[in-house]
Amino acid sequence: MIEPKVLKGFRDSLPQQEIVRQKLMAKIQQILRSFGFVPIDTPALEYTEVLLGKGGGETDKQMFRFTDNGGRDVAMRFDLTVPLARYVAANYSLLSFPFKRYHMSKVWRGEKPQKGRYREFWQCDFDMVGVDNAQSDFEILLLIHTCLSQMKVGSFRVCVSHRGLLNTFLVGLGIQDKSQDVLRAIDKLNKIGRDGVCEILKEDGLTEDQTAKVLDFISIDKTSFENTLSILEKMFGQSPEIVRLSQILTMMKACGIEKDFCLDTSITRGLDYYTGIVYETLLLDMPQIGSICSGGRYNNLAGLYTKENLPGVGSCIGLDRLIAALEELKSPIVTDSAYADVMVVSNKDDIAWSESVAMKLRAKGVNADSYVGEKGLGQQFAYAEKNGIPYVVSSQNGDVFSVKEIATRKVTDGLTIDQIAKLVKPEL
Amino acid sequence: MIEPKVLKGFRDSLPQQEIVRQKLMAKIQQILRSFGFVPIDTPALEYTEVLLGKGGGETDKQMFRFTDNGGRDVAMRFDLTVPLARYVAANYSLLSFPFKRYHMSKVWRGEKPQKGRYREFWQCDFDMVGVDNAQSDFEILLLIHTCLSQMKVGSFRVCVSHRGLLNTFLVGLGIQDKSQDVLRAIDKLNKIGRDGVCEILKEDGLTEDQTAKVLDFISIDKTSFENTLSILEKMFGQSPEIVRLSQILTMMKACGIEKDFCLDTSITRGLDYYTGIVYETLLLDMPQIGSICSGGRYNNLAGLYTKENLPGVGSCIGLDRLIAALEELKSPIVTDSAYADVMVVSNKDDIAWSESVAMKLRAKGVNADSYVGEKGLGQQFAYAEKNGIPYVVSSQNGDVFSVKEIATRKVTDGLTIDQIAKLVKPEL
Repeated sequence: MIEPKVLKGFRDSLPQQEIVRQKLMAKIQQILRSFGFVPIDTPALEYTEVLLGKGGGETDKQMFRFTDNGGRDVAMRFDLTVPLARYVAANYSLLSFPFKRYHMSKVWRGEKPQKGRYREFWQCDFDMVGVDNAQSDFEILLLIHTCLSQMKVGSFRVCVSHRGLLNTFLVGLGIQDKSQDVLRAIDKLNKIGRDGVCEILKEDGLTEDQTAKVLDFISIDKTSFENTLSILEKMFGQSPEIVRLSQILTMMKACGIEKDFCLDTSITRGLDYYTGIVYETLLLDMPQIGSICSGGRYNNLAGLYTKENLPGVGSCIGLDRLIAALEELKSPIVTDSAYADVMVVSNKDDIAWSESVAMKLRAKGVNADSYVGEKGLGQQFAYAEKNGIPYVVSSQNGDVFSVKEIATRKVTDGLTIDQIAKLVKPEL
Repeated sequence: MIEPKVLKGFRDSLPQQEIVRQKLMAKIQQILRSFGFVPIDTPALEYTEVLLGKGGGETDKQMFRFTDNGGRDVAMRFDLTVPLARYVAANYSLLSFPFKRYHMSKVWRGEKPQKGRYREFWQCDFDMVGVDNAQSDFEILLLIHTCLSQMKVGSFRVCVSHRGLLNTFLVGLGIQDKSQDVLRAIDKLNKIGRDGVCEILKEDGLTEDQTAKVLDFISIDKTSFENTLSILEKMFGQSPEIVRLSQILTMMKACGIEKDFCLDTSITRGLDYYTGIVYETLLLDMPQIGSICSGGRYNNLAGLYTKENLPGVGSCIGLDRLIAALEELKSPIVTDSAYADVMVVSNKDDIAWSESVAMKLRAKGVNADSYVGEKGLGQQFAYAEKNGIPYVVSSQNGDVFSVKEIATRKVTDGLTIDQIAKLVKPEL
């Protein structure tokens, strides 16, 4: 006997979990498609050289990397961003730009497994490649706004900043050579607090005065995007970053969504490759969940693979966090975890009865699970209940049926197929 | 510069290809859900021991197998059947039986790449575990019938047989010890013809007489399921296999689908693990496509991992073949490869115009791609055409718009948002 275990950091997805994940991903896909974004797919396995780029360091150690039977140095992808860069370079002549793509797939990282961290997990990325302007920046923000609104996660704020402003600010302080260290320290603000950031900045070699100025900069009032922008405009004048943010504000106002955005100079996103706007989301009633949707502009993503200049802007939805938020809200998306509308009981005296009744219900648009086991009625009802199927159909006589609602135990007799369809799917 | 190449036998999926695949999989999922089947997921990477079982041989050589950073012997899954067996054993107490599950995911095999064969490909499996009766056998057949009917692949035949009949027949000939060889030879009938099978059987050590009898057996008239069944009934009496097939026929008749089925004693499916009914599909107008949907009953799948007796029956849809058939038929599923209904042009004089118009269209249920680039109108129309977007919306003045249909070049002026929605999505 072989023990049927899974690897550390890997998971089986049970039906109730998988239904929730698929419903959420379908909802996100529907929104992305309504914006004209198109899906792509890339291999799970790539040449290590392609995935690593100039890389090394942490990513390298975390990769599932091996030599295949043909002697090639290969690895499983650890994100969907590097494969996107490789993909647009490889398929440049076949794509039309601006290229709006989404990619929802698994990635693998050999990290130390811990609460909420797995070695195999889903990523939902959407990016726009080939253009660097305010409209593309804004469209990603509008998409994030649409996703959060339609998911009904309560009130939220999308917090935006611009890497260029912080860079200019650090140049002014004469510490541009420390910019990577500073932005990584600031990125930790929510985790370690103001004092923690202060300590790291000092360790990084900033003077007391520089540290105080950086802390002042990231604490600029953020109650309204427009107010913060006018404060920053006084500091930076009509710089390209300020012009870009003003244009984005104009579009937010035209779409009537500006109140859900703030300009927050403490947002940096740790990663090196961002070059323009960066953003995170905040659920106002559940700040502990963290950012569900983050991203930014990177203007030299595919530079490793092509001489074409391919600026991009994009974002990534944190599926696990989104599910955590919806669970906290007891959202119907996570509580109603069944696709079947009814279960049809089996009938010992007429082996074809159950399948033919279920077939008639399906023809009316009802999802009908026909019970195929050989247990008594009690266990059949238990099956429906365990699977979250809301109604059970049983025989009465001829063309009329009994329908029991599992939640209330209420039985309605004498229903025709049409009447059952109307009862269990009133929206049809 | 790093060459942005993919590994041999692996593929990038371009948007047009990926949209077709996602549409097909959504359609199949919708049918499976209407039958009460639930989705699951399993890790891409498992312990090699778990995937190999007692195995070895061909499968072993084809696996992407390696030692991970923790020193574990691991491999990427090569099918979805072995993971299903491991999954039901591992999660036995959490599942409800009969367990009807589907699983659509990628698998990896280090086969020699050749036309139509890849090292990474999708499988769409659906199985019912925990019950061995005629109703479960029939329900899988009904599902296959529903899929083929709804995909509109033209007339088809589902060809069914029962492993037990062939086994009994071989026992009668005194060659039960050669049954694996014989069924594998018969499985090649469509590829190598009657003479080819004849030759292999002789090589396997069958006498001239035995070979002739086997060939007669697999040539029994198959014009109607019912006729063939009565011929077999005369040969085998009321054996359990005949009773099972009769019950299945009763259910086919109750559902009015018996004319699309035949009983074909030449169907064996090569694999060792089948123990009951087996089936393949045949597209009558495109026989060269091969079987789109095959499978059968296996009554000891999880025996390697658990002492629980878990009989199963299931099937697998060949996505690549299904796409080939739909392409031959020029089916709308493969020809209309865009999710966007309209593209809204950009407007240099009003940067917020395009995004706000697209937003209003989306609110009406229209999928609207807002052009975010900075090219002239000609190139914007070319973008819509290349992406298969059927309509382009441009400004007229105020709240009315011009709409151009790309296919006909016809322009309609003076339309409101509501009128555009009605024009491009009359079904709303």
